[in-house]
Amino acid sequence: MSKTQPARGMRDFLPTDVRRRQHIVGIVKSVYESYGFEPLETPAVENLETLTGKYGEEGNQLVFKILKRGEKLDTASSELADLALRYDLTVPLARVVANYRNDLPKFFKRYQIQPVWRADRPARGRFREFYQCDVDAIGSASMTVEAELCNAVGAILSKLGFEDFTIRLNHRELLREILGAAGMAEDRQTDALVAIDKLDKIGADGVKGELVARGIAEESAVKVLGFFDGLDGDSSNESILSKIEDFIGGASRSTGELKEVIRLSRNTRIKVDPSLARGLSYYTGAIFEISVPDLAGSLGGGGRYDGLIGMFGKEQIPACGFSLGLERIIVVMEERSMFPEDLSATPADVLVTVWNEESAVESLKLAEELRAAGLRVLVYPEAEKLGKQFKYASQLGIDKVCVIGENELANDEVTVKNMATGEQFTVKRSNLAGAII
Amino acid sequence: MSKTQPARGMRDFLPTDVRRRQHIVGIVKSVYESYGFEPLETPAVENLETLTGKYGEEGNQLVFKILKRGEKLDTASSELADLALRYDLTVPLARVVANYRNDLPKFFKRYQIQPVWRADRPARGRFREFYQCDVDAIGSASMTVEAELCNAVGAILSKLGFEDFTIRLNHRELLREILGAAGMAEDRQTDALVAIDKLDKIGADGVKGELVARGIAEESAVKVLGFFDGLDGDSSNESILSKIEDFIGGASRSTGELKEVIRLSRNTRIKVDPSLARGLSYYTGAIFEISVPDLAGSLGGGGRYDGLIGMFGKEQIPACGFSLGLERIIVVMEERSMFPEDLSATPADVLVTVWNEESAVESLKLAEELRAAGLRVLVYPEAEKLGKQFKYASQLGIDKVCVIGENELANDEVTVKNMATGEQFTVKRSNLAGAII
Repeated sequence: MSKTQPARGMRDFLPTDVRRRQHIVGIVKSVYESYGFEPLETPAVENLETLTGKYGEEGNQLVFKILKRGEKLDTASSELADLALRYDLTVPLARVVANYRNDLPKFFKRYQIQPVWRADRPARGRFREFYQCDVDAIGSASMTVEAELCNAVGAILSKLGFEDFTIRLNHRELLREILGAAGMAEDRQTDALVAIDKLDKIGADGVKGELVARGIAEESAVKVLGFFDGLDGDSSNESILSKIEDFIGGASRSTGELKEVIRLSRNTRIKVDPSLARGLSYYTGAIFEISVPDLAGSLGGGGRYDGLIGMFGKEQIPACGFSLGLERIIVVMEERSMFPEDLSATPADVLVTVWNEESAVESLKLAEELRAAGLRVLVYPEAEKLGKQFKYASQLGIDKVCVIGENELANDEVTVKNMATGEQFTVKRSNLAGAII
Repeated sequence: MSKTQPARGMRDFLPTDVRRRQHIVGIVKSVYESYGFEPLETPAVENLETLTGKYGEEGNQLVFKILKRGEKLDTASSELADLALRYDLTVPLARVVANYRNDLPKFFKRYQIQPVWRADRPARGRFREFYQCDVDAIGSASMTVEAELCNAVGAILSKLGFEDFTIRLNHRELLREILGAAGMAEDRQTDALVAIDKLDKIGADGVKGELVARGIAEESAVKVLGFFDGLDGDSSNESILSKIEDFIGGASRSTGELKEVIRLSRNTRIKVDPSLARGLSYYTGAIFEISVPDLAGSLGGGGRYDGLIGMFGKEQIPACGFSLGLERIIVVMEERSMFPEDLSATPADVLVTVWNEESAVESLKLAEELRAAGLRVLVYPEAEKLGKQFKYASQLGIDKVCVIGENELANDEVTVKNMATGEQFTVKRSNLAGAII
């Protein structure tokens, strides 16, 4: 007898789960489409080399690899895998843009809602298969792109019912300028980013320890963490940016870009946070992350990655994107009971009973007539006692039950029972749909 | 520089492709839901042992296996893989039903539209990642189930615009009775099914050769192939069933079940075809396959599998299902130009131009106003020459372009150009949405 649980870190979605997921995906799609983003889908399986070296030191370890097949599999060789499961939606997008450049608009705006796989240690709210809702704008270095991405993502969260989210905003170059101002050499900064990215998880002391362990002078670590700490509680972007400029010794291109994003977007939920690092190695400009008070991780994040597409093609093409995590959104919406009630709906509007095996053909026919009128109709599959069929309708929460027994058949009628009120009435079959819609 | 093509046998779907796929999936979903089927989703990755031994001799070879990770990977061991990619949607369903039996309705009707992966040799219309649209009814052995499945699948194909499909109907047990009547011993029949399944592909002579190669007496092979040949051109199910009963020596439970499916469904596209074998090993009763004249393979198929769920649980639960192949449907619909024209739609209804960097904030704001009115709006991301922005709208097939320049800003107005007619007019900004919807 085989095991019946899904594989470790993977999940099955029963109908109520799927309806909730579809509810969110429907809103995400409609908002993205209202901003002119177009749908893209890429395969779950990529060549291993497409993914290698794109995700930084920790990401590479988490890629699921697919065993070579048939003759290609030589177990004595060290290369056992040639394919891998998609790890995010950004690297496949960069590959697609490089491959189909001439078939795509100059400013290609795409959304993509598909699962990704990471061989992470499963934990509460962290799975090995999860959906990303990505939106990216390719081809422009203008800050109108960042501004519209923040607006689109903000519009989605508002439509889902979130009222307390923050779009944290930082800039990869600015973060390097801050690290430099704290005395960290350029070649230590990538290491420092990996440590600072954990600030939310392990706190300032933890990050300090990791910075020092990575060979960064304690003095620099203390300086940069002290600077971040000093901004805590400051809620004005203007004031924060001015303190940052003081720290790095004046305005820079990166502080200018952040000011431009804020001016263009006018989204009051944007908050500049110079400690935001983002784990992935491919970001080059503005970076974002969505926080809500009752979730330790983020609901999503993104940023500008002007160097990634060039890793696949001759041309260096500017790009910026945002990714929402479907599972994180669901976790918070479930805890806060934010789903509309009618999503846990019944499988059908009407149950048609079966009187006996001979007349089952009429039950099936009646069901077709009601479906043609736009109703969702379940036919009880067996000629069991009518009481059992009524009980089944109750169990499933189906409101109306149709009976087509011997008398009804003889008179071309149908008896309808309203399960909520217990009322029962008989109508001409040709008037049935009108009587119960 | 990394390769930019997708992996072998895998495909990228650009926006026009995705829209076509979504068009079909939308129809499939709405018809299945009208029959009371509920959505289910299972993970792409299953434990390897869940899939092993379920797909017959040829299927097992085609499962993509996932390399063990970290310490678990011992390259000296023969077991390099512990996980695998989903090969179909039926085995995961059987696992789910066994695992969540008490959370599911007694007669669980589910649909599932997800990709599956097979390490097949790629060919025209055959890919290594493809979508199945499955529908299954669990818990009843009644032929009302088969009848409604045929009706639902027929309704989908009709809604998509197919007018010439055939639902070929056979029965696994009946096929075994026919093989027995031709003199094949029971222990040779599974082998014989694998050969007969190739009748469409390799013809009667090819199948005869394969039967003989598998140790079946030539006399039996000739007898059974001759019987199939003798039915060719007979279009009456009644007459075919009567010839079958003559061949096997009278009515049997299986011929009775086929007659019942035909009586209950009343679908005139059903045609009994005793040579239909279906490759998968888990079928136990009625089997189906959809054919159209201009496609060598099938658009979909299915059947009853009353023994599969018992492989995962203590309980043996009857089940029957149908699977439509999304890619096959698309191939035929593209060749026949069956897609509605408006599917190759533009990314947006309106393009808002940007006059200069300062006023870009007004362009973004105007776009939000139009989106709030239900329009899909693209903002040109850069303050380039207006002519270039108009040209971009033309290239993308966007009908209406809004200009908000210095005069317009000063007078709280917007100028609109209709790209199809060349007409141009200026309206008060507050009246804009009404003027262009």
